[in-house]
Amino acid sequence: MAFQDPIAILGGTGKEGKGLAARWGSAGRQVAIGSRDLERARQAAHEVTALCGGTVEGMENRVAGESGALAVLTMPFDGMEGTLLDCRDALRGKLVVSAVNPLVFDQGRIRTREIFEGSAAERAAALLPESRVGAAFHNISAAVLLDLERAIDEDIPVAADAEADRDTIVALCQALGARGVATGPLGLARYLEGFTAVLLSVNRLHHREAGIRFTRLN
Amino acid sequence: MAFQDPIAILGGTGKEGKGLAARWGSAGRQVAIGSRDLERARQAAHEVTALCGGTVEGMENRVAGESGALAVLTMPFDGMEGTLLDCRDALRGKLVVSAVNPLVFDQGRIRTREIFEGSAAERAAALLPESRVGAAFHNISAAVLLDLERAIDEDIPVAADAEADRDTIVALCQALGARGVATGPLGLARYLEGFTAVLLSVNRLHHREAGIRFTRLN
Repeated sequence: MAFQDPIAILGGTGKEGKGLAARWGSAGRQVAIGSRDLERARQAAHEVTALCGGTVEGMENRVAGESGALAVLTMPFDGMEGTLLDCRDALRGKLVVSAVNPLVFDQGRIRTREIFEGSAAERAAALLPESRVGAAFHNISAAVLLDLERAIDEDIPVAADAEADRDTIVALCQALGARGVATGPLGLARYLEGFTAVLLSVNRLHHREAGIRFTRLN
Repeated sequence: MAFQDPIAILGGTGKEGKGLAARWGSAGRQVAIGSRDLERARQAAHEVTALCGGTVEGMENRVAGESGALAVLTMPFDGMEGTLLDCRDALRGKLVVSAVNPLVFDQGRIRTREIFEGSAAERAAALLPESRVGAAFHNISAAVLLDLERAIDEDIPVAADAEADRDTIVALCQALGARGVATGPLGLARYLEGFTAVLLSVNRLHHREAGIRFTRLN
């Protein structure tokens, strides 16, 4: 598996994006944090560099998408469509990995939004017809990612249609210090996104920050 | 938690139903295996009794539902509606736990059926307005259940609206020798059912029989 650097993290100024950037940066990977707001991107990159000492730069989403060999999407679902339409050319021919969780908090309950394509990842694929789209990193705890001393004991389920793309994403998980588990085609992304609702509800009920791990896989 | 015996397993003549019956029977719980076909129910009960040495009887679904203090549903989705309409009176006022996985195998891909209520468990709740409905036991390996010497190392996610019902189901998991994890309200059942599609796909891809476990819960 050849390195594909830099890794662009679009909408990467939140906890999840910064956590991924910090882990990849500390593993020696180059990271471009993208945002709609250049100043916020630079600020996030500055924080992450201070944390991990790696090569992390902040730039506008489209520039990050152009500079990236692949891209990870960590923006809120509401901002995804606009960003992807803006980045369509920049992402042409590249692998784009959606970590977007299309969740709704509805009278104290947590559920996924209804999305015509079935999932945020498949919506991304519909918006980026000339990119390859995968799904991963939905459920990994940002608090754990940002604490570089902590071992990541949860698995990262990975979905993508092509085996080569699943392998690339599993290698990205490895670079985080986590085990990626190829689950199958992109059509499974709806269930990975949905399981985030389960984990958030578990965490609220048990006052924990739970992840999931596959048993009997080895 | 007082015992609620016997446990009725409706549509219980398949591997999953027999596996649950064998574990509960070997833990000293009384089990009624129900089927549309009395002879098949008796045959399944006979097999399970030979395996676990417990008190397991076979009977028609409606009789099992009447005799049970609570009921677990392990029939295929296609048979669920007819059985529940037939058992509506028998299940009045009782807790009914759906383990039904509404899966479709579609050109080599695995997905959940579209169900108006959102999940098989919520469809069951709509069909049984005078029962309380929960969801659990979707993902547990029948092969592991049936091998009484084997430890169950996966968790069993549990969904139900009332905390008391979640506690009852978690205690049923404990009686199997497994950890039940309360996840939240019945509206999460769609994600538990969907995750079965992920696990089946993982198992096909990796030639394993994987389960899931929550990390950092204790």
